[in-house]
Amino acid sequence: MTVAPAAEWKPRNEHWESAVREVFAAQGALELIGAELGELAPGLIEVVLPCTPRVAQQHGAVHGGMIGLIADTAGALAGFSVAPAGMVGVTVEYKLSLLAPARGERLVARGHLLRAGNPISVSACDVYGVAEDGSETLVATALLTLAGSRGRSSS
Amino acid sequence: MTVAPAAEWKPRNEHWESAVREVFAAQGALELIGAELGELAPGLIEVVLPCTPRVAQQHGAVHGGMIGLIADTAGALAGFSVAPAGMVGVTVEYKLSLLAPARGERLVARGHLLRAGNPISVSACDVYGVAEDGSETLVATALLTLAGSRGRSSS
Amino acid sequence: MTVAPAAEWKPRNEHWESAVREVFAAQGALELIGAELGELAPGLIEVVLPCTPRVAQQHGAVHGGMIGLIADTAGALAGFSVAPAGMVGVTVEYKLSLLAPARGERLVARGHLLRAGNPISVSACDVYGVAEDGSETLVATALLTLAGSRGRSSS
Amino acid sequence: MTVAPAAEWKPRNEHWESAVREVFAAQGALELIGAELGELAPGLIEVVLPCTPRVAQQHGAVHGGMIGLIADTAGALAGFSVAPAGMVGVTVEYKLSLLAPARGERLVARGHLLRAGNPISVSACDVYGVAEDGSETLVATALLTLAGSRGRSSS
Repeated sequence: MTVAPAAEWKPRNEHWESAVREVFAAQGALELIGAELGELAPGLIEVVLPCTPRVAQQHGAVHGGMIGLIADTAGALAGFSVAPAGMVGVTVEYKLSLLAPARGERLVARGHLLRAGNPISVSACDVYGVAEDGSETLVATALLTLAGSRGRSSS
Repeated sequence: MTVAPAAEWKPRNEHWESAVREVFAAQGALELIGAELGELAPGLIEVVLPCTPRVAQQHGAVHGGMIGLIADTAGALAGFSVAPAGMVGVTVEYKLSLLAPARGERLVARGHLLRAGNPISVSACDVYGVAEDGSETLVATALLTLAGSRGRSSS
Repeated sequence: MTVAPAAEWKPRNEHWESAVREVFAAQGALELIGAELGELAPGLIEVVLPCTPRVAQQHGAVHGGMIGLIADTAGALAGFSVAPAGMVGVTVEYKLSLLAPARGERLVARGHLLRAGNPISVSACDVYGVAEDGSETLVATALLTLAGSRGRSSS
Repeated sequence: MTVAPAAEWKPRNEHWESAVREVFAAQGALELIGAELGELAPGLIEVVLPCTPRVAQQHGAVHGGMIGLIADTAGALAGFSVAPAGMVGVTVEYKLSLLAPARGERLVARGHLLRAGNPISVSACDVYGVAEDGSETLVATALLTLAGSRGRSSS
């Protein structure tokens, strides 16, 4: 078990970046809402969501459940990014605190790993609303618990 | 402040049901994912989500973030259903525990109110996977904190 | 993995009750605050806390952190009660929603298991304030994530 | 409503520090467990807990519920430290993720405010185990929701 700042995480799968992109691309839910990957580093994953009416609640801000969806994804992939090859992770639980209405041109969810363990990892995710001029507002923050397991063959 | 079983909640807006349906229909996020309202009672709201590849993660089960989205919606509407006319509610935070892979023909999120207060309400939501034969499996459970405020004019 | 109502849990350690009592008695934190075990069943554990000024916050009600402490204990022991002999459990995380001021003669935290798994179990805990006449008020509710591991020899 | 880094919080009660100390001292629960205040700044409050068998679980580490108790206290006081005079705050809910066994000479819970609002504030708390040589290990992290209300006269 390791508790360390995100900057210190070392990948254990040399193909970690392509593994992260593959898992992301395989999720219909992420395609449906228009989410994309942003910056990627071991233990630190960004998920970007354009703010459109398709993902809004009744007041025009992004639906809190959509924020949770990208926070869950970014936080879980932060854990997956430092997992050994062949290991898959599942989200066991997450908690999301909403801090401000989620508006802007896009949201950026920045997931970072707090603890990499066997069987339990923990990550956090801060979600920012990004305006057209690039300025950022913290709109939500999440904590996640992840469990790893040996992956099933994809064949 | 009241702590009571869901069965005892009394609506304070005689048009509570149409108000719930109106708020639900105004959310692009819910239309996007294909969610629909199920059974409605004061303090007890069902949201139904067909299990399709559009809302899935990489293993074919419904994405945990999608489960959070319908749990958030059902739990928040459970609070809204007993609010006075003109009051709107926002989700302050929610926590979702995932208990089993979310599979079946559809998911049913059953939100029920635990505490109706000013300014804070609390609700819970159990999410079931429903098979074609109607049998149900508990796949997730959530706790939510809601805050109410006087609504803005919709004009 | 099993998702089942608490009533259906079967112990896997024939000495589960004495194991629960032993773990409880070994915790200085529980003795310090004056907590005691209440009713015990497989997957369903009660922890009782007398409401005294020793466990209070500044308004005289029981401190929310004390409520969390007994909810954590009851929920974790609910998982431990159905674990195989030699398995120990640790709390990975918990979330506590406070519903009403925690007053009365005593608090009763009723932890019940929602999912028994390897490596992850999930339990819930409802906390009631009990008046001198025995009437109960729900004052808090919690969700917990537990992880099991092979226990260390106690020798 | 304000979302800002802790460093930017401005107190709205010129006697904020004595108010924080007074609220802390009035809580029997904190005296019972041996907790003390550490560094104090507006929006940033430390609570220190010596690691003794009195606050331990069965393996000798500090009980997770005790960690939650000091995290709740530090996070709630972080909100209270920037509240107007006469305003009191209550914890609505908290979620604690346990990252490593809580050992050391003492624990330090550092609560910092994420959002100051009316009626809802949100704070976070990181809890460190501090060894005799002063080195620190992150052992837990928490998110809290707080609600403010006009205080009762203490007369």
